[in-house]
Amino acid sequence: MEKRVITLGEVMMRLSAPGCSRFTQATTLEVVYGGAEANVAVSLACLGIPAAHVTRLPENDLGKAACQSLQKMGVHIGHIHYGSERMGLYFLENGAMQRPPRIVYDRFDSAFAHIKPGTIDWEAIMKEASWFHWTGITPAISLGAAEVCMEALVAAEKYKVPVSGDINYRRNLWQYGKKVTDIMPALIERCDYLVAGLTDFENCLGWKSSSFEEACQKATDTLMKVKKVAFTYRESISASHNNLQGVIWDGNKFLESRNYALTHIVDRVGGGDAFMAGLIYGWISGHDDAFTVEFATAASALKHSIPGDVNTSTLEEVLQLVKGENTGKLLR
Amino acid sequence: MEKRVITLGEVMMRLSAPGCSRFTQATTLEVVYGGAEANVAVSLACLGIPAAHVTRLPENDLGKAACQSLQKMGVHIGHIHYGSERMGLYFLENGAMQRPPRIVYDRFDSAFAHIKPGTIDWEAIMKEASWFHWTGITPAISLGAAEVCMEALVAAEKYKVPVSGDINYRRNLWQYGKKVTDIMPALIERCDYLVAGLTDFENCLGWKSSSFEEACQKATDTLMKVKKVAFTYRESISASHNNLQGVIWDGNKFLESRNYALTHIVDRVGGGDAFMAGLIYGWISGHDDAFTVEFATAASALKHSIPGDVNTSTLEEVLQLVKGENTGKLLR
Amino acid sequence: MEKRVITLGEVMMRLSAPGCSRFTQATTLEVVYGGAEANVAVSLACLGIPAAHVTRLPENDLGKAACQSLQKMGVHIGHIHYGSERMGLYFLENGAMQRPPRIVYDRFDSAFAHIKPGTIDWEAIMKEASWFHWTGITPAISLGAAEVCMEALVAAEKYKVPVSGDINYRRNLWQYGKKVTDIMPALIERCDYLVAGLTDFENCLGWKSSSFEEACQKATDTLMKVKKVAFTYRESISASHNNLQGVIWDGNKFLESRNYALTHIVDRVGGGDAFMAGLIYGWISGHDDAFTVEFATAASALKHSIPGDVNTSTLEEVLQLVKGENTGKLLR
Amino acid sequence: MEKRVITLGEVMMRLSAPGCSRFTQATTLEVVYGGAEANVAVSLACLGIPAAHVTRLPENDLGKAACQSLQKMGVHIGHIHYGSERMGLYFLENGAMQRPPRIVYDRFDSAFAHIKPGTIDWEAIMKEASWFHWTGITPAISLGAAEVCMEALVAAEKYKVPVSGDINYRRNLWQYGKKVTDIMPALIERCDYLVAGLTDFENCLGWKSSSFEEACQKATDTLMKVKKVAFTYRESISASHNNLQGVIWDGNKFLESRNYALTHIVDRVGGGDAFMAGLIYGWISGHDDAFTVEFATAASALKHSIPGDVNTSTLEEVLQLVKGENTGKLLR
Amino acid sequence: MEKRVITLGEVMMRLSAPGCSRFTQATTLEVVYGGAEANVAVSLACLGIPAAHVTRLPENDLGKAACQSLQKMGVHIGHIHYGSERMGLYFLENGAMQRPPRIVYDRFDSAFAHIKPGTIDWEAIMKEASWFHWTGITPAISLGAAEVCMEALVAAEKYKVPVSGDINYRRNLWQYGKKVTDIMPALIERCDYLVAGLTDFENCLGWKSSSFEEACQKATDTLMKVKKVAFTYRESISASHNNLQGVIWDGNKFLESRNYALTHIVDRVGGGDAFMAGLIYGWISGHDDAFTVEFATAASALKHSIPGDVNTSTLEEVLQLVKGENTGKLLR
Amino acid sequence: MEKRVITLGEVMMRLSAPGCSRFTQATTLEVVYGGAEANVAVSLACLGIPAAHVTRLPENDLGKAACQSLQKMGVHIGHIHYGSERMGLYFLENGAMQRPPRIVYDRFDSAFAHIKPGTIDWEAIMKEASWFHWTGITPAISLGAAEVCMEALVAAEKYKVPVSGDINYRRNLWQYGKKVTDIMPALIERCDYLVAGLTDFENCLGWKSSSFEEACQKATDTLMKVKKVAFTYRESISASHNNLQGVIWDGNKFLESRNYALTHIVDRVGGGDAFMAGLIYGWISGHDDAFTVEFATAASALKHSIPGDVNTSTLEEVLQLVKGENTGKLLR
Repeated sequence: MEKRVITLGEVMMRLSAPGCSRFTQATTLEVVYGGAEANVAVSLACLGIPAAHVTRLPENDLGKAACQSLQKMGVHIGHIHYGSERMGLYFLENGAMQRPPRIVYDRFDSAFAHIKPGTIDWEAIMKEASWFHWTGITPAISLGAAEVCMEALVAAEKYKVPVSGDINYRRNLWQYGKKVTDIMPALIERCDYLVAGLTDFENCLGWKSSSFEEACQKATDTLMKVKKVAFTYRESISASHNNLQGVIWDGNKFLESRNYALTHIVDRVGGGDAFMAGLIYGWISGHDDAFTVEFATAASALKHSIPGDVNTSTLEEVLQLVKGENTGKLLR
Repeated sequence: MEKRVITLGEVMMRLSAPGCSRFTQATTLEVVYGGAEANVAVSLACLGIPAAHVTRLPENDLGKAACQSLQKMGVHIGHIHYGSERMGLYFLENGAMQRPPRIVYDRFDSAFAHIKPGTIDWEAIMKEASWFHWTGITPAISLGAAEVCMEALVAAEKYKVPVSGDINYRRNLWQYGKKVTDIMPALIERCDYLVAGLTDFENCLGWKSSSFEEACQKATDTLMKVKKVAFTYRESISASHNNLQGVIWDGNKFLESRNYALTHIVDRVGGGDAFMAGLIYGWISGHDDAFTVEFATAASALKHSIPGDVNTSTLEEVLQLVKGENTGKLLR
Repeated sequence: MEKRVITLGEVMMRLSAPGCSRFTQATTLEVVYGGAEANVAVSLACLGIPAAHVTRLPENDLGKAACQSLQKMGVHIGHIHYGSERMGLYFLENGAMQRPPRIVYDRFDSAFAHIKPGTIDWEAIMKEASWFHWTGITPAISLGAAEVCMEALVAAEKYKVPVSGDINYRRNLWQYGKKVTDIMPALIERCDYLVAGLTDFENCLGWKSSSFEEACQKATDTLMKVKKVAFTYRESISASHNNLQGVIWDGNKFLESRNYALTHIVDRVGGGDAFMAGLIYGWISGHDDAFTVEFATAASALKHSIPGDVNTSTLEEVLQLVKGENTGKLLR
Repeated sequence: MEKRVITLGEVMMRLSAPGCSRFTQATTLEVVYGGAEANVAVSLACLGIPAAHVTRLPENDLGKAACQSLQKMGVHIGHIHYGSERMGLYFLENGAMQRPPRIVYDRFDSAFAHIKPGTIDWEAIMKEASWFHWTGITPAISLGAAEVCMEALVAAEKYKVPVSGDINYRRNLWQYGKKVTDIMPALIERCDYLVAGLTDFENCLGWKSSSFEEACQKATDTLMKVKKVAFTYRESISASHNNLQGVIWDGNKFLESRNYALTHIVDRVGGGDAFMAGLIYGWISGHDDAFTVEFATAASALKHSIPGDVNTSTLEEVLQLVKGENTGKLLR
Repeated sequence: MEKRVITLGEVMMRLSAPGCSRFTQATTLEVVYGGAEANVAVSLACLGIPAAHVTRLPENDLGKAACQSLQKMGVHIGHIHYGSERMGLYFLENGAMQRPPRIVYDRFDSAFAHIKPGTIDWEAIMKEASWFHWTGITPAISLGAAEVCMEALVAAEKYKVPVSGDINYRRNLWQYGKKVTDIMPALIERCDYLVAGLTDFENCLGWKSSSFEEACQKATDTLMKVKKVAFTYRESISASHNNLQGVIWDGNKFLESRNYALTHIVDRVGGGDAFMAGLIYGWISGHDDAFTVEFATAASALKHSIPGDVNTSTLEEVLQLVKGENTGKLLR
Repeated sequence: MEKRVITLGEVMMRLSAPGCSRFTQATTLEVVYGGAEANVAVSLACLGIPAAHVTRLPENDLGKAACQSLQKMGVHIGHIHYGSERMGLYFLENGAMQRPPRIVYDRFDSAFAHIKPGTIDWEAIMKEASWFHWTGITPAISLGAAEVCMEALVAAEKYKVPVSGDINYRRNLWQYGKKVTDIMPALIERCDYLVAGLTDFENCLGWKSSSFEEACQKATDTLMKVKKVAFTYRESISASHNNLQGVIWDGNKFLESRNYALTHIVDRVGGGDAFMAGLIYGWISGHDDAFTVEFATAASALKHSIPGDVNTSTLEEVLQLVKGENTGKLLR
């Protein structure tokens, strides 16, 4: 059996108002299922990298639909657990032009938030894992989720599974009584690869750095396992037009991707997860950082053209954009 | 200022799979807002009876949309409170033929569940009330909701406002630590008009009656204020075909409506609320029970032809069906 | 050039609330174009009988779309005139179960209502006509329309073109200052074939007959040209379930079709026009009345299964139902 | 009771072809209700300013739906009258890229066009009014509408209600036999605040000014009550890309807003009404002209991102754009 | 690893006109993927029986989508092959009332039709198989498909895998130059369980039996392996109303299910496949024929309520209908 | 009878994933009918030039729908033949931003591919023709199609009908055993007007030119009848943003149109066919090349704003863009 990239995190039902309509105009909502980590698993599966997602879903028709959405895309669902609690949800108004997207989260008390240490057989999973990926959203959800995340990191270390963590600090979560700085440092230092920005380092590790370079240098110098840091610079001209550039800090210097003008944005959600999947693809396939940052940023750019949370581009499609040939051109 | 019928209860966002599709097939969900008591308020407003709904909604775009859905139909929304908690939701798969509708409730911990005694100024409201209506769903949601319901009943009594209660026992609620029989009897005996079936009496009052007639007789004989009991008999041939008949117990005997063959059902939800609104219309307008039971059952029959939770039929439309002229016939 | 059946009448834009939704729920309206006489032309074209429709449309994008809807179905549009006035409209709520369909007409002051005698070159048209068909809606719209109708009948008589008239009395029209009995008798007596019911004879000719048979006998006995009278009996169980039977009075007796149970009605509008087209098909093709009444009623039954105003069934489809083989059965 | 901004004008049903499709492609039309003045009332209600709209609607399901659309958004509908005539309509093809939007108006002979002096109790209304707003569309519809508008202005003057008028000259209206210069001067000089451009002054007052500044100076110098003039400059790169800048003439000089690049336009209709509502918000709240012109132009910019006729942005949303922080950026 | 039911056959893209609309009205087509044998695999997976489907799909986005539709429902897709040819398609007009459904097949020259003997490693598959199912459609498609089917039957026999065959004779296929009676007898006699009707026996085996009982007796008496024969009687009242009863011939007698009145049919396609899956469920789980025929017919009845080709009912849902409790009743 | 422009070529059903969704996301596909040559015929009809399309369609409901789509737009369909084979199809994913559109063709073995010499009565057609247009797609489909194309060219020459050919080389076609250079030269030299680019000349005629100018000079100098060559330069910034400029080589020099920035592209398919129709409009109406190239490029620009394969712009709409007044501006 091929080894799989393992991702851990909540899968939510996303309910979005159609097109550019507002919540108070919508008579239907469009449904997809996603979550920062599951999006990475699906993207990797579309790129041809075997992936399995670990989560806990409600034992009802919504949980079943969420599971089917992963299964459809070829993500292994054998490690998913079920419980009697509710589905995590989020409501999305897409925004357009100068009007920003709006999100109403409704994820408290979900089946995933009630996950408990001991639920997941991490030893068995990590034995067959090629990579482990987590994000800073999981430990922000509940103490149980944070503990399960730590269990995974310990098992990953034991079985020498490379680990990536997308710090992704979310101020509105972290409501279960622990401070982010109580929890995150121990998790972050168990990563080989980080996606983080200047404020993520500040919020999660308490670092006050004068520049992103200084923070990256400190991360690769002082954090136990961290070898590389990646990040995307996003300039928001409007909800319909962003500019995007990715960077990788390789321990000594920054490798930069080209800068994409993302005009005519279709769906902005999941752009970071597509970048993350692109990074894992590059690193797990043994590419160098110069290629990897171009690949990951191209993957992220393509995500903005696809409705839903996930970049479903194939390897060939991302490579075509990396090469920059015939961008957007109809080939018959 | 005209006096208004006052209704109290949760308003939920209903998310239904389109047409006959299943949850796992749906890529969009249709959105309406409703709740057993709010549905009665909207129906009454459509029948020309001023109505106001009392509830507590989340202070976000979903709560605003729920409020607008009542306001659109002419229900007074001046007594609605807002809080920081979530919107109650329910997911609906319509069913068809031999396949029953399915509901996934997701209403725990909602803004309404967090309502507290003292929130609503019932004295001010009841001074201007023509009627008060509640259902057995409200006291089943939380202790706070039960207490607020009792506050309303006390104030209604003080200002001599007629009270109707739809017992509507829901086994899946009642999870806050009180037994239904601890709470419901004191609320039920403060009603002038009840909608209840044999099992509702058994579950809420602990009565073991040998017949519905015996239970009704006991209700009007022994419960402090109760004057009348109404109910609908529903025979389910399939999800698409029910037969429906309404009855009123007037203290001495049953008045029965004609029996409607409800073939080609469009939306079964809210059939009972439409019946309830029809009863209130009949009683508040001074009609006799023979008319009232025909009117209420016709209103309920029409509801089954209307998508959504609410019977939006006008007075003229219900009366046309009561008269039985040109049923379903296109008049140019 | 093959001779064509000529129909005269207004083409309206129909705007219908989707599915079973009510006007006040609809956020989109479905658009088709139709009119009692144009529906007959389209049906005949679908049955393989060359047909041309004569009307007057507004010279704007809506008039163009109406014209294209006829052209698409193969109806000759070379005799259509254009003017600066508005498009006639009607709004339709489909109804369901015990709830009747509702129509809001908005056809006053339309381009067709402003048609004037002399506009249409009836001589040229009738020279190439195989049949002429009109309905009682046209003379009800405006004096100009009534006069144009009379012009057509005179020219038809001159060129010995058989004429059918569907009396179709509409009380809400007839607002231009003439009484129906001032206008209709002269038009009716120029028909060879009538579709009319007991009340149509009463309203348009002032006849008080004790039975439909008596009225038919009087029509074929006393009206100048009338040879046959046809009609459909429609029993409305609900908006979703009608029973339908067609009859032809052949001057001496009634020929009756089988009685169709029309359960699960999809679209009731245009049922009469489909019957009319079926009659013309039968008569123009030289079939006997026994066949013709079965064919026309089968055509009308099929119309109820088709969204929109028009029966687009082919000859083969109607004949299959007439034969009664494999009704509704999937043949692979 | 809080005083309300009063708006007067026709409410039309808007029927638009979905997305970028053309009239001749559309099989459904999207329905919203709007009118230049009602759009202002709804926008103000969304900004938290109490508002009431005065109009005359048909007494049918379409008039009811139009009324509900205002009521839903919190506009007071107690001063709306009903009549037997038709609903005013307009058909919209959105346009895209180099292809302009197209409108087919169908508003003649509407219930509003038949409004008559004496219908509205302006004395009662103006007693409770905080502001009165009208546009040049109303007096262009019919003599009755022009007279009712004058009645309102006289009553506003009597009760010292500030008045704004959006001149909005429409050449295609003005078909009832009066010249625009017979009617408009007397209405315009009763305004405190005008929205008008150079050609509006020329068409409605007969002024031939060499510059917009000259016209504005003349307006504030010579027109009885006029204190300020506002306007938007719109540069049309394509149907999908406009540039927009607002200005206020304060009697002495122009205050200019920033210039918005409106790329990716969602719905261009109602941009001027959103600007108007923004002006009223600024002025009625006591803000200075520098703030007011920025606020109104930001409101107008946001409108272009919202489907339908109306800017439903909240105060907080407009202020966020005025501040220019995080334009279009997803905030979680 | 759990053993799986193996199904073999073409998966087609189904393109159906929405609702009751006709092909010539449809501006969109609804897409699902299905095929007689794959439908059985999906149904079994929904009932909790592990299943794998064997087929050959085009190596393009359509083939990928077809594969994902199976994968989503939990069917194992590891034995699917890919080729350069086209996707098999069929176009469906649903029909309604007296108007029958229409199908336009477009499946010639598909990737599946080009399957060749030796492509599938049947030895490896049958070692892990719990059951093998095929239908008479596969050998009708191409000689290669017939040969692959025979390969499968030989391997199944070798590994003692029970075999079911749904004879399903389709006159319009069989165009590759072989007569049905040249091919089918050898395939049929390798089955343990048959689904066949009187005409299937006649067309495929050349039997002229005087009754279905006689044919069944002959089948179980004379065909090498055949133990049981099952069939459904379907009475077509209209496209919207069928009556359905299943039977199993157990070698000696018929076991009959109850007769379902299928009014309000949602989607008639795949009713037979749902029956087949129900039979396999019953037999593979060791139930007796009396239960199995009730279970399979209930499964088929439920299929008619579900849009698409497949019965996605769970075991619990089918059992609830078998028990006949609360048919179609909303349970909260 | 007015003479018509005659076009020859396959009409395909186009099935496109809605909006920006991907094939694997689509649950519906949007249906239009088109083909390079039929698109020219429809465009010309919309511009007021009589046109007839010659093709061969399957004799089923899909072929009927394709025919109706031409008939609707006023294209003469009297020369269309029918056969028993299948409808040619293509599946389209629109693309967006940096993600290119994707097409899956499924047109082999279509009714058109089976067209045979002798099928079309070209003598009768060319007698009444004002122009003949073909493209390089037709001879690429099958030998029969190539032969029919040559028949048409011979007849056109006989009746002195001007001929335009859009070379449009498609590498993926040409699978019937002939080399492109065996077939195309004889067809190309029978054209008066060519649309071709540098690589078209190379692929079809084997010319290796150092510049487009050199190739054009060679074409007008050496090819028997060719007088002019036209082409469009398209720069693909992204799938949503192209730049477009047209040129005509008049035998001596290039005439260039303005360069259009096509941001916010709605539908890119058919841009070349709209250009072709614009050229024919200009040339057949006697305009000079300077006007013609502006007109044709404006027509092509407008096409990009219209969903579907065809530019349905009217003459007035194209002229308005040529004049460059009020580009994209709403005129009331």
